[in-house]
Amino acid sequence: MSMQTKGVVLIADGMADRPVPALNGLTPLEVADSPHLDHIAASGQCGLMDPIGPGVRAGSDTSHLAILGYDPYKVYTGRGPFEALGIGLDVKGGDICFRCNFSTLEGTLRLLPDGHFDGATLVDRRAQRIAEGTHELAQAVDGMQIEDVTCLFKESVEHRGALLLRGPDLGANVSDVDPHHEGTVPHGAQGADPPSRKTARVLNQFVLRAWQILKDHPVNKAREAAGKRPANCIMPRGVGLAPHLEPFRERYGIPGACVVETGLIAGIGRYLAMDVPHVEGATGGADTDELALAKMVITMLEDHDFVLCNLKAPDLSGHDASVETKIGAVEKFDHLVGYVHEHGPADLHLAITCDHATPITFGDHTGDPVPLAICGPALLSDRVMGYDERSVVGGALGRIRGFDVMPIMTNLMGVQEKFGA
Amino acid sequence: MSMQTKGVVLIADGMADRPVPALNGLTPLEVADSPHLDHIAASGQCGLMDPIGPGVRAGSDTSHLAILGYDPYKVYTGRGPFEALGIGLDVKGGDICFRCNFSTLEGTLRLLPDGHFDGATLVDRRAQRIAEGTHELAQAVDGMQIEDVTCLFKESVEHRGALLLRGPDLGANVSDVDPHHEGTVPHGAQGADPPSRKTARVLNQFVLRAWQILKDHPVNKAREAAGKRPANCIMPRGVGLAPHLEPFRERYGIPGACVVETGLIAGIGRYLAMDVPHVEGATGGADTDELALAKMVITMLEDHDFVLCNLKAPDLSGHDASVETKIGAVEKFDHLVGYVHEHGPADLHLAITCDHATPITFGDHTGDPVPLAICGPALLSDRVMGYDERSVVGGALGRIRGFDVMPIMTNLMGVQEKFGA
Repeated sequence: MSMQTKGVVLIADGMADRPVPALNGLTPLEVADSPHLDHIAASGQCGLMDPIGPGVRAGSDTSHLAILGYDPYKVYTGRGPFEALGIGLDVKGGDICFRCNFSTLEGTLRLLPDGHFDGATLVDRRAQRIAEGTHELAQAVDGMQIEDVTCLFKESVEHRGALLLRGPDLGANVSDVDPHHEGTVPHGAQGADPPSRKTARVLNQFVLRAWQILKDHPVNKAREAAGKRPANCIMPRGVGLAPHLEPFRERYGIPGACVVETGLIAGIGRYLAMDVPHVEGATGGADTDELALAKMVITMLEDHDFVLCNLKAPDLSGHDASVETKIGAVEKFDHLVGYVHEHGPADLHLAITCDHATPITFGDHTGDPVPLAICGPALLSDRVMGYDERSVVGGALGRIRGFDVMPIMTNLMGVQEKFGA
Repeated sequence: MSMQTKGVVLIADGMADRPVPALNGLTPLEVADSPHLDHIAASGQCGLMDPIGPGVRAGSDTSHLAILGYDPYKVYTGRGPFEALGIGLDVKGGDICFRCNFSTLEGTLRLLPDGHFDGATLVDRRAQRIAEGTHELAQAVDGMQIEDVTCLFKESVEHRGALLLRGPDLGANVSDVDPHHEGTVPHGAQGADPPSRKTARVLNQFVLRAWQILKDHPVNKAREAAGKRPANCIMPRGVGLAPHLEPFRERYGIPGACVVETGLIAGIGRYLAMDVPHVEGATGGADTDELALAKMVITMLEDHDFVLCNLKAPDLSGHDASVETKIGAVEKFDHLVGYVHEHGPADLHLAITCDHATPITFGDHTGDPVPLAICGPALLSDRVMGYDERSVVGGALGRIRGFDVMPIMTNLMGVQEKFGA
């Protein structure tokens, strides 16, 4: 008698907004032409969602973790692992990850037997915000073996990068090597317990060897010849132990896919062992092909019961404080939603929401609640007729949290185990 | 790009109410003339707030802790520390505090080597509800040194007082000295672990020495001459370990002030290292100068980013079950809110709420939700047009908890760190 349906959550990154003076106090979502969003709202149930909790400013990473049903207060263990995921490192549970800078040292770096550095001074934490050549520098130190630990390193934008240590018996209670200010010798990492002391020992060795390799690297020789500071060392900070997360399929008993544009969210999807297809034409920018994303959602639904999709464009226009671009991004999301609704299964349960607000007047994420609408055959429609920050107030979903979305979806989809008898 | 604004939370103590038969089932807040409260509601967002949780009867202390963002289930460690705070003792994290009575003993009190008392009988736990002379009695025992522990004692109203023990290696797992009924010898305090055994030893010594001092005190000699029972001993009970709370400024990164009338809430403000100015004319009663409070809020906003203000009058009229006085107290709160709204910065984020309901028909705090309204430039207005227990239902804030107020305020004020990337 019980039936099983498929479920899709479509997330407009940062789409929710605050009153915009240039729009007479309305929001881009209120102003944009978005008939498909309104149709979902009118035919289903609406409410407000706090991605983490009321007022809490969510990152895209913590919000997506919560929406996928993983409590960020329990699993978000420092910036390092998610920074590493975001730039494409293949992070696994138990890895020790650091955010890093390419920096400039003067002098001859030495590692003393007590685990402190000596002989060199940090003169520029960002190596003059080096923009080119970091891929070559990263490759020169990536894959280093120290004791029984593999050191993976990858560059990010400008002077940034991430370091991953993988091996047995490593701990994450280690101090930063990066001294966080210039004119001083790098700090030797110190561990607070035996596994963390191993991490510190390997980390200090990595920093020393990286300096030995980078100081003579052709990229740096060329920089010095051009009168620029060399990016001759790597300064790790912000340690985090990559958490052991139950894969999506084990947690929910169904196969899931992530159709997304940004490295960070793709990384979270892979971390949960969800399928994360490459989408041709998905640029992550205002020029992205939103119908390519929509078509990939439909494709993924062929052999996945659950698909999460994120459109990045609204967030970018919020960060850039561009009203026109944000209205355009809302309309792109509307096209995406319309295509999925039209081409998905007739009994699909479809949720539309945002991972956080990125208001034009603020230019960054805020902790405001975001609108949520869900439609599908298992839902009693409420009185809400439009999808925007104001219209959804008073809908049947009330005010919920991101962490509530997966229980609600798996309940509607008929795939959730009963709790009790 | 991101902007920072100031924030104010104005709290009408116990203002929320239940249907009053004499008002045809309306509440004082529904009947009172309160145009400024309604204006805040109409221009901002409204909802219901459970100070602690749905249905939970809050004290003013637990509610204010929650509203300031300190989870009372974690930090409210017994009545002792907050009783001591409320009467003006300078409580610090780690202090051991007790509620106390001045009582009457007959006989000669002795402390046995095993930590039990002998030789005297408790004949009146409240020393005939002694009303005068307790300040002199308290001063006679205040500041006692026992081992390396300082004992601070201060009188409260009638026979009540509070004892604070400050010193190294004290524990709070100790039993009461007060036997809670008359006709018996006082109980020797017993500790459940080594630090608590030290507390018990010091506490028993304090009780013995206090009796030795008080039995011959002129106040008691005069009472006996007048045929009254002497307040010749102090009976501690309700132990609590004062929690180590992160100061407000460290938690939120902004300076905060408390403009309040009652010792208890002033004590909580000082405990969080907030500024707590003296307000001339703030009596804490129905005759209080509410505009003096409002003006102090505006003064405090000059060099504080956040100000909490509490008006006590509505609570008193609820305890006294006086409909007319309570309507008057609502109108006092309305004046206060109007002044702050008119004289505060144009971009102020202003919240108005209650710390709990004190319904006229109940005469004490209840666990009913209270109305909440917030206005300011970052908020999308909802459809609610009035501020009272019924009108706010269905507003954009939904139903939140006291603990959510600070995340919501710091989000609107633009001073909250992002959680994630």
